Amino acid sequence: MKPTPTSRPELRTLLAFGAHPDDIEFGCGGVIAKETRAGRKARFVICSRGEAASHGTPAQRVVEAKKSARLLGATVEFIKLDGDAHLEVRVAHAIKLAAIIRRVRPGIVLAPSLVENQHPDHPRLGQLVRDACRLARFGGVKALRRVPAHAIEQLFYYAVTPEAEPPDITPVLIDVSAPDVLKAWIAAMQAHASQAASRNYVELQITRARLRGLRAGCGHAIALFPNDPLVLDSLAHAGRGARQF
Amino acid sequence: MKPTPTSRPELRTLLAFGAHPDDIEFGCGGVIAKETRAGRKARFVICSRGEAASHGTPAQRVVEAKKSARLLGATVEFIKLDGDAHLEVRVAHAIKLAAIIRRVRPGIVLAPSLVENQHPDHPRLGQLVRDACRLARFGGVKALRRVPAHAIEQLFYYAVTPEAEPPDITPVLIDVSAPDVLKAWIAAMQAHASQAASRNYVELQITRARLRGLRAGCGHAIALFPNDPLVLDSLAHAGRGARQF
Amino acid sequence: MKPTPTSRPELRTLLAFGAHPDDIEFGCGGVIAKETRAGRKARFVICSRGEAASHGTPAQRVVEAKKSARLLGATVEFIKLDGDAHLEVRVAHAIKLAAIIRRVRPGIVLAPSLVENQHPDHPRLGQLVRDACRLARFGGVKALRRVPAHAIEQLFYYAVTPEAEPPDITPVLIDVSAPDVLKAWIAAMQAHASQAASRNYVELQITRARLRGLRAGCGHAIALFPNDPLVLDSLAHAGRGARQF
Amino acid sequence: MKPTPTSRPELRTLLAFGAHPDDIEFGCGGVIAKETRAGRKARFVICSRGEAASHGTPAQRVVEAKKSARLLGATVEFIKLDGDAHLEVRVAHAIKLAAIIRRVRPGIVLAPSLVENQHPDHPRLGQLVRDACRLARFGGVKALRRVPAHAIEQLFYYAVTPEAEPPDITPVLIDVSAPDVLKAWIAAMQAHASQAASRNYVELQITRARLRGLRAGCGHAIALFPNDPLVLDSLAHAGRGARQF
Amino acid sequence: MKPTPTSRPELRTLLAFGAHPDDIEFGCGGVIAKETRAGRKARFVICSRGEAASHGTPAQRVVEAKKSARLLGATVEFIKLDGDAHLEVRVAHAIKLAAIIRRVRPGIVLAPSLVENQHPDHPRLGQLVRDACRLARFGGVKALRRVPAHAIEQLFYYAVTPEAEPPDITPVLIDVSAPDVLKAWIAAMQAHASQAASRNYVELQITRARLRGLRAGCGHAIALFPNDPLVLDSLAHAGRGARQF
Amino acid sequence: MKPTPTSRPELRTLLAFGAHPDDIEFGCGGVIAKETRAGRKARFVICSRGEAASHGTPAQRVVEAKKSARLLGATVEFIKLDGDAHLEVRVAHAIKLAAIIRRVRPGIVLAPSLVENQHPDHPRLGQLVRDACRLARFGGVKALRRVPAHAIEQLFYYAVTPEAEPPDITPVLIDVSAPDVLKAWIAAMQAHASQAASRNYVELQITRARLRGLRAGCGHAIALFPNDPLVLDSLAHAGRGARQF
Repeated sequence: MKPTPTSRPELRTLLAFGAHPDDIEFGCGGVIAKETRAGRKARFVICSRGEAASHGTPAQRVVEAKKSARLLGATVEFIKLDGDAHLEVRVAHAIKLAAIIRRVRPGIVLAPSLVENQHPDHPRLGQLVRDACRLARFGGVKALRRVPAHAIEQLFYYAVTPEAEPPDITPVLIDVSAPDVLKAWIAAMQAHASQAASRNYVELQITRARLRGLRAGCGHAIALFPNDPLVLDSLAHAGRGARQF
Repeated sequence: MKPTPTSRPELRTLLAFGAHPDDIEFGCGGVIAKETRAGRKARFVICSRGEAASHGTPAQRVVEAKKSARLLGATVEFIKLDGDAHLEVRVAHAIKLAAIIRRVRPGIVLAPSLVENQHPDHPRLGQLVRDACRLARFGGVKALRRVPAHAIEQLFYYAVTPEAEPPDITPVLIDVSAPDVLKAWIAAMQAHASQAASRNYVELQITRARLRGLRAGCGHAIALFPNDPLVLDSLAHAGRGARQF
Repeated sequence: MKPTPTSRPELRTLLAFGAHPDDIEFGCGGVIAKETRAGRKARFVICSRGEAASHGTPAQRVVEAKKSARLLGATVEFIKLDGDAHLEVRVAHAIKLAAIIRRVRPGIVLAPSLVENQHPDHPRLGQLVRDACRLARFGGVKALRRVPAHAIEQLFYYAVTPEAEPPDITPVLIDVSAPDVLKAWIAAMQAHASQAASRNYVELQITRARLRGLRAGCGHAIALFPNDPLVLDSLAHAGRGARQF
Repeated sequence: MKPTPTSRPELRTLLAFGAHPDDIEFGCGGVIAKETRAGRKARFVICSRGEAASHGTPAQRVVEAKKSARLLGATVEFIKLDGDAHLEVRVAHAIKLAAIIRRVRPGIVLAPSLVENQHPDHPRLGQLVRDACRLARFGGVKALRRVPAHAIEQLFYYAVTPEAEPPDITPVLIDVSAPDVLKAWIAAMQAHASQAASRNYVELQITRARLRGLRAGCGHAIALFPNDPLVLDSLAHAGRGARQF
Repeated sequence: MKPTPTSRPELRTLLAFGAHPDDIEFGCGGVIAKETRAGRKARFVICSRGEAASHGTPAQRVVEAKKSARLLGATVEFIKLDGDAHLEVRVAHAIKLAAIIRRVRPGIVLAPSLVENQHPDHPRLGQLVRDACRLARFGGVKALRRVPAHAIEQLFYYAVTPEAEPPDITPVLIDVSAPDVLKAWIAAMQAHASQAASRNYVELQITRARLRGLRAGCGHAIALFPNDPLVLDSLAHAGRGARQF
Repeated sequence: MKPTPTSRPELRTLLAFGAHPDDIEFGCGGVIAKETRAGRKARFVICSRGEAASHGTPAQRVVEAKKSARLLGATVEFIKLDGDAHLEVRVAHAIKLAAIIRRVRPGIVLAPSLVENQHPDHPRLGQLVRDACRLARFGGVKALRRVPAHAIEQLFYYAVTPEAEPPDITPVLIDVSAPDVLKAWIAAMQAHASQAASRNYVELQITRARLRGLRAGCGHAIALFPNDPLVLDSLAHAGRGARQF
């Protein structure tokens, strides 16, 4: 059941949560492209329609998000919590997200990081997802009883901007420099035309990934921050360290 | 060259450094047993003969270390730096260790952690090994020129006691609960009879590993602390998270 | 009023808060047994009946908690906040807890730690208790005016699992290795039969305490994390340091 | 052997190390006065004669230090390591200090904190003392064999200036506001006339202690930073928390 | 637009938020006096009338706050959120504060620090202000649309007590030792006669400022903690470092 | 003497220390260009000739460094400590650097950061410079007596690679996006042709500066890490905060 050096590990669904229609793509789109190209199913759950943003209407944002998800090989679902720029940490929200986790039954869950000093919706969604992963496992939560409990394999946080990178978690870096992966990621970010046009978002992310790639000895790389230490079957799976300079 | 889900990763030699004859075994012996049983070569470099310890003569300690290494499937080499309880951080020492790294050409290097509040020799050896891994890569160091430069894949720190665990590095946990692995580890620790007899060292380590195992959902586990973020080819290699409670 | 080397310090009541019927016992039951055996009164306030757990009915849980408290020499009181797995940080809750603090007038208060990455109810209750200790002192809070303000001596956090230990507070370790203390603690944990049966909870706690005991040079020890620095009348009260290896 | 609420704890000798003739007094002189007045023996070991200071000759400094120690009820001994402003971390120094520890056989040891950004001699002496406390326990260190090994009870760090306070250790605060204690401390600082005259050293320390006292609810208090968690026999010894505002 | 060595920087309004009528004055009143004396407009927004305090009626508190603001050269406005000791983190509050930011259009915003272990209202107001600064910039928040979006220059946190100082932000120190500045600050604190009379609040703050001044080489100084790194046009603006001892 | 809003601050010499011929340029060359263009004198002290590097001879490295310094408007001086890749922390070195500080009498000093996990020479030189800044102020150090003591204004650390950025110091960001500044910096890095040719060093630094610029709302920016909090005369000098996203 655990991966071994010779067997192909089971690729269970990846479930990514975003507070706004473009957060997943800007925060870790390259990882999604990498995973779907490797045969893993990916599913996005987006918790607002970006209705408080300076640019773009909710209708545009939904269209953009659907196009972007398609480019990354993912499916996308919109849910309503408190609305863009209005998210609060409520148990009712965490239970709603836990119900989705029980339904989708993912191996890997992605959520925005818990670092507070960013868009207020981001760390709050991160907290809700983290709590939801716990609630999804508890047998006795009444509102969740219709679907059997589910334990995920790992929760990773992504950081939409450098400020959101958790200083106290050692990240894992995913190499996203394969040309088709990088191309899909850029296209997915550009699909959010209402956002990408007005500011340097795409350049910010590609610059970040290039800086990590330069340090790690590959073209571009994206950091994910594990919620719990990785349990490895052996050091054969520990990859190489990011140390080029 | 990078591991992929279907190919067996190349298992390059593991090189472990210890300040005293029993440090590697007490700090991470179970990992050594796991790796050698998976077909990886392991080599120990021990930098004193334990001549300042309260129990055991240097001659006894060497015999014990050789027996212990054999039980773990590793070879062992003794070198002289400043002597037990006398180690200082000198560049000459780091160059000596770098020459060994160039000779052995390991993929993975293990060293005691850099946390200061333990046996003074431990963090100092950790610093020397970390520096040696850098020096082994520099083309122009005169004293090293006879052997070509070598870049390792990753440096991991082990912690001989809980106090030595680095609070600012997210560890990876290696599952060592396979019966033959656990048995080999215990036997290797007991082979250091002059040390194991007088105090609760073996119980300390097994209790630590059991506590980690209980948290990680396996029998026993050992934590290693990577010097650099892991670069992974995909999340298929990210294992599962340690979250049982 | 302050303890002096020759006088017996006044043993004011200990008030412990738990989010679920077994949290206090699993987190710091040995400390309770130690204190009550030394003549201190102990009182538990439990803020749910465990109704969201995978095992055990609320009715069973209450019976178990009462039996367990009795084994530890404590009295127990159940209150309702938002319900198991539904706790939110609301000022109304903090005021409710502050009213209890004013009524019980404890010297020492125990609460689950503020570390976020555990059962969502735990750190939230910790926050509520910390706030309640402040509110209990403020003269003008209308809802609390019927009972005179009360200032506690110290708030300590307990950690239900190792993940919940605050990394930034130096703990104090309480030696719980006296046979009757250890026995009472284990019995109290086992009294939560609906929980203890299904998983390794008791072993987890005893292993934790044994690991601390090995480091501190005693049989078993439990860590508590003070909310504020300890003010000591002299170093005669500073105990000994935990440094066995 | 362990302190109990009713017995008077055994007061073993306090051994304080200072890099310069006035460091102990400015860093924690009030604690010394408190302890000697409670019947504990105190001994100072000073590792230079202040020969690199801007003010005062070595001969003056020695006279001042002797007078100051007398005012605090302590004896004083001068040793030579590398000289003022020239201290390096050498094992030979740590062994020299370990020999003193074996000779004096203290319960409590005080040393300057390990925080790097202060007078370079301070953290280096702190490291040497910490290592010396370990070496004093190792049975096999040749240079120390003439005197039996000795394990201290606890090592505390003092901070000569606020910058030197370790941010990652929860301090214990010692109440030094008894009039005779405070008076002795001030007199001891003023005894270092060559230093106290030229700058605001005495005011700095009294202001620091007053600020801590205001927070802790007493007149003046001094913080000490334990190297290891305190092991307490019960919460009766945990004092009260520093929380006045 | 950016300050240059020769031009006088534009002094945009300073907007300070306080949870209670005296928080701004006790936390950073000297800075306000300094800034208004240099020609900057200052405006206080106070989010309760201190109705839960042990001393003083709401009516008294308002009178005191007005007098105190006048002494510091600031104007003052009272708003109602949840009431003293009842503040919760709600998006509706952040939007209310964001509307004020859009109306006042400040350059600098001051708020209580985010450190949790103080009066519960303080860090909550800090969070609300931080979020409000973000919301004030988002074009699409419906409730804010009547006034154009506004981006502040910098958010600084003040600490009402030493416990509230953020350990992970390097502060900037403002020299407040000019006699008229210091005098105005003390007068402003004393204007809160209902609070200042009963406890040592004024002494606490002056002792804090004196301790910082002693370290920084000036009479008195106050620390502010920037939410974001300072962007400087050149090192000519980096001031001098606080290093007197 | 202190800067005021209307007067031009005195621009005292900037003194930058580098362990290797290209460290200053790669770590903070843009800041040097900015400062010299504003009329400040800059002086480099380089402590090896890069003789252990994989590429370039010592003679080439010296020529490159002189050319590079000229492009940045700085003068350069080479000194010998232990040689490239051989640097140790010795007091004799710190005294040598302190003598240079007394001779040059700089306002601002720049040194490589103290973060350990980089080229071993970098943090060691950082420590030596930090200590040298202290020693330069002590009146009684014999070896320094020929030149009067000197107190610098501020010590800033630069980070040659992202790994070297101190996680616990809030940086100041210097805007280096003026075309002539950026061009001079790039030219200065390229002047180290033996290094720049073989690897992506120039791209690494420009990518880093661009990422910071994107966050700070300017083209490119470089972070410096102050050793001590900045003492500012008023908030008019606090610049703006780096918060673009």
